[in-house]
Amino acid sequence: MFSYRGEVEKILRRAAVKVGDKIKVVSRRRAYIGVLMPRTELGDPNHLVLKLANGYNIGVKVDRDTEVTLLESQELPELAVPKPERPQDPSKPRVTIVGTGGTIASRVDYRTGAVYPAFTPEDIYGAVPEIAEIANIKVVQACNVFSEHMTPDLWVKIARVVAKEINGGATGVVVAHGTDTMSYTAAALSFMLKGLFRPVVLVGSQRSSDRPSSDAALNLISAVAVAARSDIAEVVVVMHGSTEDDFCLIHRGTKVRKCHTSRRDAFQSINDIPLGMVRNGQIKLFRDDYHRASSEGRVRVQGRFEKKVALLKATPGLPSSVIKGIVASGDKGIVIEGTGLGHAPQSLFEGIEFAGKRKVPVVMTSQCLWGRVNMNVYSTGRDLLQLGVIPAEDMLPEVAWVKLMWVLGRTKDPDKVAKLMQRNLTGEITPRTRPDVFLKTIFTSE
Amino acid sequence: MFSYRGEVEKILRRAAVKVGDKIKVVSRRRAYIGVLMPRTELGDPNHLVLKLANGYNIGVKVDRDTEVTLLESQELPELAVPKPERPQDPSKPRVTIVGTGGTIASRVDYRTGAVYPAFTPEDIYGAVPEIAEIANIKVVQACNVFSEHMTPDLWVKIARVVAKEINGGATGVVVAHGTDTMSYTAAALSFMLKGLFRPVVLVGSQRSSDRPSSDAALNLISAVAVAARSDIAEVVVVMHGSTEDDFCLIHRGTKVRKCHTSRRDAFQSINDIPLGMVRNGQIKLFRDDYHRASSEGRVRVQGRFEKKVALLKATPGLPSSVIKGIVASGDKGIVIEGTGLGHAPQSLFEGIEFAGKRKVPVVMTSQCLWGRVNMNVYSTGRDLLQLGVIPAEDMLPEVAWVKLMWVLGRTKDPDKVAKLMQRNLTGEITPRTRPDVFLKTIFTSE
Repeated sequence: MFSYRGEVEKILRRAAVKVGDKIKVVSRRRAYIGVLMPRTELGDPNHLVLKLANGYNIGVKVDRDTEVTLLESQELPELAVPKPERPQDPSKPRVTIVGTGGTIASRVDYRTGAVYPAFTPEDIYGAVPEIAEIANIKVVQACNVFSEHMTPDLWVKIARVVAKEINGGATGVVVAHGTDTMSYTAAALSFMLKGLFRPVVLVGSQRSSDRPSSDAALNLISAVAVAARSDIAEVVVVMHGSTEDDFCLIHRGTKVRKCHTSRRDAFQSINDIPLGMVRNGQIKLFRDDYHRASSEGRVRVQGRFEKKVALLKATPGLPSSVIKGIVASGDKGIVIEGTGLGHAPQSLFEGIEFAGKRKVPVVMTSQCLWGRVNMNVYSTGRDLLQLGVIPAEDMLPEVAWVKLMWVLGRTKDPDKVAKLMQRNLTGEITPRTRPDVFLKTIFTSE
Repeated sequence: MFSYRGEVEKILRRAAVKVGDKIKVVSRRRAYIGVLMPRTELGDPNHLVLKLANGYNIGVKVDRDTEVTLLESQELPELAVPKPERPQDPSKPRVTIVGTGGTIASRVDYRTGAVYPAFTPEDIYGAVPEIAEIANIKVVQACNVFSEHMTPDLWVKIARVVAKEINGGATGVVVAHGTDTMSYTAAALSFMLKGLFRPVVLVGSQRSSDRPSSDAALNLISAVAVAARSDIAEVVVVMHGSTEDDFCLIHRGTKVRKCHTSRRDAFQSINDIPLGMVRNGQIKLFRDDYHRASSEGRVRVQGRFEKKVALLKATPGLPSSVIKGIVASGDKGIVIEGTGLGHAPQSLFEGIEFAGKRKVPVVMTSQCLWGRVNMNVYSTGRDLLQLGVIPAEDMLPEVAWVKLMWVLGRTKDPDKVAKLMQRNLTGEITPRTRPDVFLKTIFTSE
């Protein structure tokens, strides 16, 4: 929660207005009535944020002529969550929850509807006391950002905290993460954590906790259950499996994607079936081809990423100058989201050749998302193979992008890069296409 | 079909080898055995294409030291399709099939498995004679490329041919189009064709015709049925609705996407339900909120596109220099595939501000694909709105990209661009989010 500063603070003080109050603001000949919200972290400091009666927050530009009038003095509810006693039961598994920021660690003010990031992991524990029944919980904070601001450097930071906890004896680790880029972080952790011998579970919430429709509690309980009770020594994502608050799915960290902006079942496995599900804290596995946990081991972090890698969608008529510009800017690799089976327009061929000559690997995925790249069917695909393009099999474009960054952090040798990109390292490539795995657009009401 | 030239031709002639023959090639100390395929259109002329026993085609580099040996002389089957008599029945509707190239106009050689583009629309007609029962068919060729090589200039060319046919009295028009970029062309036609009063149906094939599993015949029959019999005066896509060869779905041209590299039911409506379905040539509509056909009218083509528009996926840590580079390269607009509800990393804010100051509009979509952008929920979204980012509601990123090109072809005024981008022009924005419309990843065998 952030305080107003400078000119805005002066005007608010003069009007005897504080956050939570219902106020009227007249700015640039327009009047607004609403509840004064806390300042946004990143916004222009010369704005104030107003929650309107329709529920939307707006930013109102404030200058010397702005008039602010107090309509009704109101208190915002106390934001701190009381920390409950933490029962420690030595017979229970030990699970560490790693906080990173994001919606699962946010709380909503019922009255104003505003979302406040709750930045201490204790808040998570306080909000869902059921998890204490499953495991002895330890909370650690790795970083403190909404997931849209996550970076490769923070991926490494999270990986080091996870490795430390596992090597220190945690039964499993839960990473509480905003949903926006959760699948990127899951893929990054999958490539980084070598010798992983305990479960690492990413979890988040599509709806802020404390809202009646929130998915936070079930997601967190299910994630802790997987961390404490499963024998999956992989990086997985545990999120709602339906819009009912009834079960969660366990997705492999390299085969999952956020596919809806707001639905609670937004996370879907692509080109693969989930590893299993969790209902009432009980785990049911769908398959047995996963890496088994063991009681002993040592996990290492291979945390070097080449950050200068581009992700480029092949659109009709895309000119070669775009790839030349990417190469000229110093990028060390390019992942193309091609069309169909892995095609790119002829207008891009010269640029791809240009990249190849400068030893900048070009990897081909498909913007279809589902299915497998196959560049042997049509002449365009074969021509691209001749230009040295590396087919990424059935990898998701985002996962191929994370993988190429990680691979280029290990080697710049073009042959080695090509080999590593086409080798399944951590479940990101399914050995055999399952033509039966696909989305279907459903519509229930009619 | 293309002939070998130059050095390659000489070597083949010397070995008395022709296309279709089983041969052995020794090049650079490696030996390959397979059937000699026709030269690819775009490939390096110094390669020959060999169909291996495993069914894959490979390109083999040919130089002076390459040895070619004839193993078995074989004939490729005749490629020309006999043109059937075309019965003209004045009581039947008149449908024009516009050929553009692509798989629906391709034929496969059973023995070698190679796909030959069949570039005359007569081939289409010859391959599926059933369509003559539905309508009197006229075939016109607009262009001649695989759809991955489609360009905005060709979109306009296709639009002009379509308009000419409709204004000339066609009951409906079918555009035979490769599947790779079919949804881009469908969106482009939707924005361009003003005053549309007859159906325009894009159709293609995920499997080459003449293959036992081909979807070409059912797709084409269903498309002709929609063009001839429906009262939908919109641009639609008609493709398989299931993997059985049993029915097709009618998708609105601005709400559809190719979602699988190879499945016959790859095309799915996103954030909307299809307009209807076709089974045995009979149309069943799911809804009535579509633009009705009329017997009279005049369709015009608004065919100006600003081609310099970028489509950029927001990835973790994406730096502002990328947007600055895009602006510096002369691009006039940017569509961001943001994360979640329409977010971008903080590291991109400076670049977005830079674009705004240079009057380069920045439009926000979501890489989730499903759901709606809502930039009022979190501070990141509100901050981006303050920077002037235009939320694209529930538009697909590709459709928003096509639309921004088209809008910028009409006006460069930032306020007008913002208004047009947020106004539903041709079904690309659903007025109300249907939370019940979503994909579900299905897996049938277990």
